[in-house]
Amino acid sequence: MSMTSSDSVLVLSRRALLVALLGLTLCGGAPTRAQAADPLPSWNDGKVKQSILDFVAAVTKAGSPNFVPPAERIATIDNDGTLWVEQPAYTQFVFALDQVKALAPKHPEWKTTQPFQAVLEGDMKALEASGEKGIVEIIAATHSGMSTEDFNKIVADWIATAKHPRFKRLYTDLVYQPMLELLIYLRANGFKTFIASGGGQEFMRVFADKTYGVPPEQVIGSSGETHYQMWDASPVLMKLPKVDFVDDGPGKPVGINKFIGRRPIFAFGNSDGDKEMLEWTAAGQGLSFMGLVHHTDAAREYAYDRDSKVGKLDKALDEAIAKGWTVVDMKNDWKTIFPPVSKPSP
Amino acid sequence: MSMTSSDSVLVLSRRALLVALLGLTLCGGAPTRAQAADPLPSWNDGKVKQSILDFVAAVTKAGSPNFVPPAERIATIDNDGTLWVEQPAYTQFVFALDQVKALAPKHPEWKTTQPFQAVLEGDMKALEASGEKGIVEIIAATHSGMSTEDFNKIVADWIATAKHPRFKRLYTDLVYQPMLELLIYLRANGFKTFIASGGGQEFMRVFADKTYGVPPEQVIGSSGETHYQMWDASPVLMKLPKVDFVDDGPGKPVGINKFIGRRPIFAFGNSDGDKEMLEWTAAGQGLSFMGLVHHTDAAREYAYDRDSKVGKLDKALDEAIAKGWTVVDMKNDWKTIFPPVSKPSP
Repeated sequence: MSMTSSDSVLVLSRRALLVALLGLTLCGGAPTRAQAADPLPSWNDGKVKQSILDFVAAVTKAGSPNFVPPAERIATIDNDGTLWVEQPAYTQFVFALDQVKALAPKHPEWKTTQPFQAVLEGDMKALEASGEKGIVEIIAATHSGMSTEDFNKIVADWIATAKHPRFKRLYTDLVYQPMLELLIYLRANGFKTFIASGGGQEFMRVFADKTYGVPPEQVIGSSGETHYQMWDASPVLMKLPKVDFVDDGPGKPVGINKFIGRRPIFAFGNSDGDKEMLEWTAAGQGLSFMGLVHHTDAAREYAYDRDSKVGKLDKALDEAIAKGWTVVDMKNDWKTIFPPVSKPSP
Repeated sequence: MSMTSSDSVLVLSRRALLVALLGLTLCGGAPTRAQAADPLPSWNDGKVKQSILDFVAAVTKAGSPNFVPPAERIATIDNDGTLWVEQPAYTQFVFALDQVKALAPKHPEWKTTQPFQAVLEGDMKALEASGEKGIVEIIAATHSGMSTEDFNKIVADWIATAKHPRFKRLYTDLVYQPMLELLIYLRANGFKTFIASGGGQEFMRVFADKTYGVPPEQVIGSSGETHYQMWDASPVLMKLPKVDFVDDGPGKPVGINKFIGRRPIFAFGNSDGDKEMLEWTAAGQGLSFMGLVHHTDAAREYAYDRDSKVGKLDKALDEAIAKGWTVVDMKNDWKTIFPPVSKPSP
């Protein structure tokens, strides 16, 4: 199972307001005025930014042969590494490790059982040696055995305080400002924006709305099975330690078909786990947009691609180059990376 | 597998326009004028109709303690027997039987193999004797082995011409006019309307938009697995003869959590397969609405409940009565059952 091997979440609550305001312009407001300002101010001018503007203009122009009715303007966008930072580790995995520590007092046996012992002792070498099996055990121990509502609360509490080791900011502040603008721009142009991520669906849904303006029903990710049962005469959905769906690689078109039932005309990713989603989008009839974020900025964020363990970008990059998909050079195409710090981080 | 044991699909394309027009009133139009007219003209005045009007008024009144923000106004509504006719057989099963006949020339062995032989010979007794195993074989043979796009086309062609044996009308014309009005009324009041059905998700999505104004991404149902693969250098999703998810009974809250990630505040069903969905809705915090369609009108539609093979309503009816949920007495609460015939049926 690779529930941890592709994606995760984020925020900026002022953004929710912005989204709502921009959304209103769709309903008979003054769209021309909204368009007059640069809708993507954090993108440097150039081929990449222009490819987005051109695509949106083409599919929204009434009467044009490329016009797409609003209901069919489906955008699917990866999360980890595409909407927020995924280095040095997937945020959801960091959450899982923190949960192991939080749950340890109830599990004295973990002190001498791998992979838990490795987590508790901070022994990253032993943790790595436990391999995929170890990761699955960690995810199962921290993502099941409670109700969906209890899990949501645990995630909400964690994400409200946990900070990134390098940037010392909340994970939900380490979202890409240019991509937030892109989401808002797409919605202002009638697109329905979905997240299609290898990360945990229920994990992301806790903050995707506040962070990205994407409501839970538009967040598609990997998931575990749940079981309906009575608990003190009230029904609950218990989270089981069993994988239901892995929304990664060839699973992404499968998930998109399952959850949306329409083919996207716009897709954005950043790793080989997004390759099939981009291919599926490209194979639709009519105009489509395929984009990849290429992490090229070690100074402001990270630089990685073909040899990275997290967010490996190799085959998808070759395909993007061969087929002329849009490849964002983070260093050159993005004016800013993260939203401004609203208050000093302690 | 009980993919055929609960729900299915429908239409009226003039309705799509109505829906769109009503939807616009949400965006700064003249909501007061829209509300002035009776939003549910096909419902007879009385306790049942009033319970709907009261609920919607309560959750949409700003400043009221029962106010629910639009984003959380989730409605989940069953299909077979709740939105359209399910007697004498689930429409999707009728489709499957027709498909067996259509595919028979390619399967000469079916002439002497059950349950196919029974279908081809119209031997309903032998078909029934083949039991659930037989039904699964028929569904597998007719719902897999093709791409999702090919399947959609097959369904679209069938539903455009197949007629109901008693009413001699298209299945998509045998939708309940009062429920169409209810869907429109809910959306005009900021609800997001979802279908939550035991029927096939991909089957329903072919016409749910035109018929009910419910886009594919808001149709939740049972599904088979699909597999991403290349076909003549183009990617397709092949439908596999393997059940992915059964959206019935306790599966309904599971499906709602999986696809929506929020608890409904409004749910409507008509059979024991909806019991857990209604319980799950009732167990939410705040005001919620639980409704059941009780088929009591043999003259205009059908009368059935506790002993019916199709759409059995027994335990859910007891629970609805005990808990004071809304139970529609079709004969007395509905002024009309079906939309008017727009053109004479041959």
